[in-house]
Amino acid sequence: MNIAELANEIRCGDRRALARGITLIESSRADHRCQSLKLMELLHKASGSSIRIGLTGAPGSGKSTFIESLGMMLIGKGLRVMVLAIDPSSAYSGGSILGDKTRMDRLSREHAAFVRPSPNNAVLGGVARRTREAVVLGQAAGFDVIIIETVGVGQSETVVSELSDIFLLLIAPASGDELQGVKRGIMELADLVLINKADGDLELAATRTCTDYASALRLLRKRLGDADGFPKAVTISALEERGFEDVWSGIESLTRWRQAQGLWDQRRAGQLRYWFEEELRQQLLAQMGTTKAKVELARVGDRVALGELTPMNAVEEMMTYLRSGSAL
Amino acid sequence: MNIAELANEIRCGDRRALARGITLIESSRADHRCQSLKLMELLHKASGSSIRIGLTGAPGSGKSTFIESLGMMLIGKGLRVMVLAIDPSSAYSGGSILGDKTRMDRLSREHAAFVRPSPNNAVLGGVARRTREAVVLGQAAGFDVIIIETVGVGQSETVVSELSDIFLLLIAPASGDELQGVKRGIMELADLVLINKADGDLELAATRTCTDYASALRLLRKRLGDADGFPKAVTISALEERGFEDVWSGIESLTRWRQAQGLWDQRRAGQLRYWFEEELRQQLLAQMGTTKAKVELARVGDRVALGELTPMNAVEEMMTYLRSGSAL
Repeated sequence: MNIAELANEIRCGDRRALARGITLIESSRADHRCQSLKLMELLHKASGSSIRIGLTGAPGSGKSTFIESLGMMLIGKGLRVMVLAIDPSSAYSGGSILGDKTRMDRLSREHAAFVRPSPNNAVLGGVARRTREAVVLGQAAGFDVIIIETVGVGQSETVVSELSDIFLLLIAPASGDELQGVKRGIMELADLVLINKADGDLELAATRTCTDYASALRLLRKRLGDADGFPKAVTISALEERGFEDVWSGIESLTRWRQAQGLWDQRRAGQLRYWFEEELRQQLLAQMGTTKAKVELARVGDRVALGELTPMNAVEEMMTYLRSGSAL
Repeated sequence: MNIAELANEIRCGDRRALARGITLIESSRADHRCQSLKLMELLHKASGSSIRIGLTGAPGSGKSTFIESLGMMLIGKGLRVMVLAIDPSSAYSGGSILGDKTRMDRLSREHAAFVRPSPNNAVLGGVARRTREAVVLGQAAGFDVIIIETVGVGQSETVVSELSDIFLLLIAPASGDELQGVKRGIMELADLVLINKADGDLELAATRTCTDYASALRLLRKRLGDADGFPKAVTISALEERGFEDVWSGIESLTRWRQAQGLWDQRRAGQLRYWFEEELRQQLLAQMGTTKAKVELARVGDRVALGELTPMNAVEEMMTYLRSGSAL
């Protein structure tokens, strides 16, 4: 595969080249990994002017319908939209039951949209890296908006927030008064809390839930990078496609404000630093996973299991072995 | 400090020496760390005949009252009991509001009991290591039963299960019919599910909850190491001290059965292997934390933030740097 050519085609916005590029970065074959590193080198500076929107919400909050409605509206405005999913449940179970493509039927058929289901058979660390690289490819391909979606299992909302400029939390109206066990950490990440399904029988409940979240957001400490009035909670109806113009104008004004303050670039720089350190952690741990290291690990592990070595002394032995480079 | 002498005193069951030993292993000072490694070397073979009981349960399930009642009963049988806590919330918040000692007032005053609150100001990895080492000291000091308690936040229940021979899950009676959002993973670890507060108004609810859990346990796949009738769900009342003889005879018969099958030693050997690999992971990551490594990390990180290097290429640079030993 000619990587320079592929990079050029992606830069021209060629959808098929983009799909091939993503397949390449999703591959775990060593030669493919080598080629993707080269592709990333060629494209990582082309960050373009994409707005990256992170979206999380519990199952049943209506994420797919939301993305489809938002995506269709943006396409109507002449924008190009990419959708990526981080689905840790598929990473755990080895495959999502319902592919994301089938879930966003209308959007997937649009020429200005590019919907990519989450990669299967990968641990979260792997999914995170591949999604990060897919975002870089999407930016290089000139997408105006890149939506990165997750159900928020485990650490996946942190991963998404480190990939996005703006973070949205989608909520279904609560049956009672209480906040639906949304983790405080997720609330702290959100720029906009969207209470979905503000239609029909649920409209009143949605308004009530919105008030609850608005109060909760006021209680959170003010963060650096919060424009006036943000973070805020609003009601929408993905089904009736209501509230989307407000959501988009909110995103746009937050974008402009952060760019004017220099906070936009600052956040992106911080994210690059985060991904560097995260990749480094993965690489350090990967030293335990080479064929030779596994043999040594089992050998030393046997002596630990027999009580001949304490775990800590065994660690010293393994560290010396790994530092010597014998496991490479 | 004379470590050989300290080791001897601990082996003789000297409580003050044990307390000093635990304080030593909890210290993060480099010279103390060196001494604790020596202490662990001297004592790690003295695993004795302790039964290590892991206990988890949500806040409000009555863990402290349970431990106090069980502990007092065991002391009544002439056994010596050690209680350790892994409290990740204190690790996160930098200190538990209610010390564990105050929570187990009666037990703490018994000469045959040794109650140790969880160490403060430590990350979970650190808490895990220190608790593991405290268990080894307790075994060397000849405690018959070592109870390791956690609230089950994050990964702490895995940590506890890798430290214990028998794993107990404590549950408060549910108000409704459903299992109270207990993570499947915890259910799979449990040898005994104890539905507490089977007294007064809650007795009926406790019986119902017990039936629910008994069904749920039947649905879980049979594990290697499950004696006939295990895992099982039973009702108890820590307040009225009812059901404790049954719990203890259950633990004893499970112990005898696993020892006869060779599964007891097999589990302990597997745990040693687990701790070796876990310590190795910590050590590999700790390479990023030395003073020199942090300087280099910041320097390379700056270039990543400026877009001069991709995160992956920066990782290559850092790996070369760390492998060279320059950061040590």
